[in-house]
Amino acid sequence: MLSELYGYAGRILRVDLSKRSVKIEELDRKLIRGFLGGRGFNVKRLYDEVPKGVDPLSPENKLLFATGPIAGTGFPIGTRLNVTAKSPQTGLLGDSNVGGHFAAEMKYCGFDQIILEGKSDRPVYVYVHDGSVEFMDAQGLWGLTISEAYDAIRKELRDWRVQIALIGPAAENYVKFAGIFFNLHRPAARTGLGAVMASKNVKALVVRGDGYVEVAEPDEFEEFVREVEEAVYSHEQYWPRRVMGTSRILMAANRLGFLPADHFTKSVVDYAYQVSGERLAVEYNVKNRSCFSCILPCSRFYVIKRGKFAGLYGEGPEYEPLAGFTVRIGNRDLDAALKAISMVNDLGMDAITTSEVISWAMELYERGLLDEGETGGLKLKWGDMDTVFELIDMIAYRRGFGDLLADGVAKAAKKLGKGAEIALHVKGLELIQADPRGLKGYGLGFAVASRGADHLRSEPFIELSDDPRIGQLLFGEAEATMRLGVRGKGKLVAYYENWCAVVDSLEVCKNIAENMEILPFDKMAKLIEIVVGMKTCASDMMRIGERIVNIERAYIVRQGVRRRDDVLPRRFLKEPIAEGPSMGHVIELEVMLDEYYKERGWDPQTGIPTAEKLHELGLHEVVEDLRRNGVELRPALD
Amino acid sequence: MLSELYGYAGRILRVDLSKRSVKIEELDRKLIRGFLGGRGFNVKRLYDEVPKGVDPLSPENKLLFATGPIAGTGFPIGTRLNVTAKSPQTGLLGDSNVGGHFAAEMKYCGFDQIILEGKSDRPVYVYVHDGSVEFMDAQGLWGLTISEAYDAIRKELRDWRVQIALIGPAAENYVKFAGIFFNLHRPAARTGLGAVMASKNVKALVVRGDGYVEVAEPDEFEEFVREVEEAVYSHEQYWPRRVMGTSRILMAANRLGFLPADHFTKSVVDYAYQVSGERLAVEYNVKNRSCFSCILPCSRFYVIKRGKFAGLYGEGPEYEPLAGFTVRIGNRDLDAALKAISMVNDLGMDAITTSEVISWAMELYERGLLDEGETGGLKLKWGDMDTVFELIDMIAYRRGFGDLLADGVAKAAKKLGKGAEIALHVKGLELIQADPRGLKGYGLGFAVASRGADHLRSEPFIELSDDPRIGQLLFGEAEATMRLGVRGKGKLVAYYENWCAVVDSLEVCKNIAENMEILPFDKMAKLIEIVVGMKTCASDMMRIGERIVNIERAYIVRQGVRRRDDVLPRRFLKEPIAEGPSMGHVIELEVMLDEYYKERGWDPQTGIPTAEKLHELGLHEVVEDLRRNGVELRPALD
Repeated sequence: MLSELYGYAGRILRVDLSKRSVKIEELDRKLIRGFLGGRGFNVKRLYDEVPKGVDPLSPENKLLFATGPIAGTGFPIGTRLNVTAKSPQTGLLGDSNVGGHFAAEMKYCGFDQIILEGKSDRPVYVYVHDGSVEFMDAQGLWGLTISEAYDAIRKELRDWRVQIALIGPAAENYVKFAGIFFNLHRPAARTGLGAVMASKNVKALVVRGDGYVEVAEPDEFEEFVREVEEAVYSHEQYWPRRVMGTSRILMAANRLGFLPADHFTKSVVDYAYQVSGERLAVEYNVKNRSCFSCILPCSRFYVIKRGKFAGLYGEGPEYEPLAGFTVRIGNRDLDAALKAISMVNDLGMDAITTSEVISWAMELYERGLLDEGETGGLKLKWGDMDTVFELIDMIAYRRGFGDLLADGVAKAAKKLGKGAEIALHVKGLELIQADPRGLKGYGLGFAVASRGADHLRSEPFIELSDDPRIGQLLFGEAEATMRLGVRGKGKLVAYYENWCAVVDSLEVCKNIAENMEILPFDKMAKLIEIVVGMKTCASDMMRIGERIVNIERAYIVRQGVRRRDDVLPRRFLKEPIAEGPSMGHVIELEVMLDEYYKERGWDPQTGIPTAEKLHELGLHEVVEDLRRNGVELRPALD
Repeated sequence: MLSELYGYAGRILRVDLSKRSVKIEELDRKLIRGFLGGRGFNVKRLYDEVPKGVDPLSPENKLLFATGPIAGTGFPIGTRLNVTAKSPQTGLLGDSNVGGHFAAEMKYCGFDQIILEGKSDRPVYVYVHDGSVEFMDAQGLWGLTISEAYDAIRKELRDWRVQIALIGPAAENYVKFAGIFFNLHRPAARTGLGAVMASKNVKALVVRGDGYVEVAEPDEFEEFVREVEEAVYSHEQYWPRRVMGTSRILMAANRLGFLPADHFTKSVVDYAYQVSGERLAVEYNVKNRSCFSCILPCSRFYVIKRGKFAGLYGEGPEYEPLAGFTVRIGNRDLDAALKAISMVNDLGMDAITTSEVISWAMELYERGLLDEGETGGLKLKWGDMDTVFELIDMIAYRRGFGDLLADGVAKAAKKLGKGAEIALHVKGLELIQADPRGLKGYGLGFAVASRGADHLRSEPFIELSDDPRIGQLLFGEAEATMRLGVRGKGKLVAYYENWCAVVDSLEVCKNIAENMEILPFDKMAKLIEIVVGMKTCASDMMRIGERIVNIERAYIVRQGVRRRDDVLPRRFLKEPIAEGPSMGHVIELEVMLDEYYKERGWDPQTGIPTAEKLHELGLHEVVEDLRRNGVELRPALD
């Protein structure tokens, strides 16, 4: 037996693919106190073990899977997992968080973290079960799509309860935004982690455990769970979320005017209902599913009942792919959008980035800046779904014009020598489906997020309340919680970044915890006490969040990121929204950035954390390391 | 054949029970122009045909069933029906509105209105079908409960598609708040219409039609319907309403502090979730059902799966019975509440009034003002559900202390010689489950509503938005749309009274139309044009609403109602709410009343409409009639 199972604190499994050897490491409680779990564990290890200069697709990169102390306890708002590596898409921090059932199963194998390092000499999948690790031959699986490989592995193992993280053809072709897919339709999609897995010749990581997770104070845990259940079940957002998941955001975004329609040239459309989560719920959905131990089964399965795509079924879609393959590319046909999303999933790509590269090319084409000679004969008209289907396939297999897009929008624009101004990314990661001109806190979040243009690092959804009283109360600035406000956004984003870092390290559902106010910092502390048996408090939790945000910043600073990289595409800074409820707005980024750095204790000139801040957070070795790497640290803010 | 079917405009079926004869009357288009349908038709006829002095339980009273021009067209927000008579409970206007499938079926029989008059010499049920009316023997049905009689009639007629309006034992025993029950669990519950039906020796009215309803402009109708469907499906309230119906109000009322807990002595409780619609949805509900042609199936069926009442199932409950048999009587046991509601339904009583008479008696008992000598040995403690079950039965069969309560709380207090101050009614009709101190517009609505303490005459739900901008915009007073505001409430309530009167006459669902903003006055006008083929406009619609409100007022003025009767129980005027979000509030009724009468063009001294206002509305004959009845009309306001 490789590991004996015990309590909340699992162990760490280190898999050397080059040597086909494994090593079990104990989990240091100091690491829990400093970084809690999940995202915190991963970034700490990435910082320590993947130095500057490593090629993301080389054996020296490491692919880290980690979950947190709550995973597998049955806590009722899910069990999640972070996957982390140096990103081949951005060259910076690669990190993605995923739900489903994998994390609990991994914990039941006895592991809080699995590290894949080195490179296998031929395709394998790694099978962790019954206290052993097997390197299974995957030569026959190479080239299979997600659903094909999923079926093949389950058939080979003759076990329907295995949890599988796997890659598709796009990853094998080193598409820079290929993801790792869990439970078929739940990808760790962003920052190109699938390509990292492919570079190690690993088709899948499969786990199956029979262990359990001990809780330090079972009676108090039961009481805590009961309170959370009541809060979730009685929350007014319970049923909308259960019925529509995040897909309901599309109608809301249309009401408030922050849709990314026609590649962010329109913020409202007149056909929102036709492509909405509401319509999916009424006409397409057939059942619901939850992540492990969650009481809010917000994932839905759809079936197309008639028409050209009759019989197509699948899980989801969530808001991001839904908006990406409808409004963002000018498509009004919900069936065709489901087909496109299904293709993107099965080929194993990030739907957000895929929708950006396609809609970016469409805008160029529609504006006459790209011709059929360059696209290989494709006419990239808004909403032409047959072309979109073709293009998705061309990207995944790097054929023709698809090869150009397969590196992401930033590199595509560079290679093409045009379109850089409308390439909608930050630090090489493409923008999600929300126009930051209509959601300014989100906009600031995109600019500063440690992995690029993304909402999941801060997600200050409270600004949607448009309630000045809350902003005044929480941040001393009424505008902080008004979506079109500016002042106070620095504080707002810093606060929510810290909070998100802790939730991503606890590895529970951020959406439920945040929107239903389940886990403010004091409750997190109580939960850790109950589960881990470790005395702690709300300010410890805040400090953990801040520490994680700072080490992530240090990681990208070490790669060369500075304030000049904390930007947004020109469109959002200079072109006011033309119509709808956010009409006339651009985003006042520099003012917000100044406030943000000040709140963070980072040098506003460079965007580098001060030595004082890093020492205050106990990150002494990071100070040393950055200095060794030639980064000039300002001692302190005045 | 009694009637040939044609278009929107059905006919009127007049059934003389004394003579066992029937008469068909044509529908005058002028009546549509003046009163539209449903509630408007009924009150106009009641005013004309049931003069002052008629004993509500005598053959001279008339029982009117009417639906509206939209009924049976397939319009997607339901098809409703008004039942109207002089009320045996209040001696004033008896009227109740009900959903389900009866109205459409009645329309398919060719009738917009059915009038039951006189009195049968022995129990019958009236069966309208295939162009004929049959007086069916009901001696074997007398004494049966709602569910028993329902089954017996369907069995006898060998037709599962008949629509049945029927009464239970409570009505037969002339319980003053006995209702008429449709589709088993959908009562026209308020104001004692069941007792009127019983007094005519009619156990049921049964309809079964094979006709159809023509629409003047089918293509435009289809387009209009498509727009409504999209608006409903895409509304953010669609799914919460679909999953929980009105039962979700309980948690909201607890959040905002207007629950009627322990007979309105507490406005918040700590056990709300335990008795909530949210919990019903998660733990009890098994399927949904809609009213005829409605696309929002908000009615739910529950099953109790374990415990003492395992196996009990039924439809609903809506918020009113749910709160009435939980918080109002201090009961925390949801299973027991479902049992009590099921009993009240099956015996055929109004759940609101039943919960008031019981909670009123409980408050007297708990305060030591009522002893076991007076109750016949019953210990009326908060939440003692075994006693509640017993008492429900005693009321329905008028046994012992139940006989006292069976006349309603006003008469019970009078007979008992105490408790009048805490008898929570207006004009003899008991208050619903919302504390008007926390919802002041509703409070004004209770005071002035034409049938007594009731929200359905105005339902100014917009004050729940607490948004001063809306009030300023719509009524020139910010407080109008703030639930704890005072100024502007007169305008708010008058406006919504007019609107509700029109919707009740169109006979579509007020909840959907109002909360989802489906039918503002201009849309109503358009709908009438499309369906009826009659040119009209928004101001015509407003005028129809105002006309109905005024003739209803004239009806109760003729019975002696004056400003002194537009009151609220002392508790709401003098005792501030002790805790929670509405803490410290009483209701400032007189200020609001002054504003209301002014807005209405009624004499603020007496509360009587001015002759000018009645003439302006074309109600010339009402002016004459009131004067004949000795009512002094002020010519006009200054």
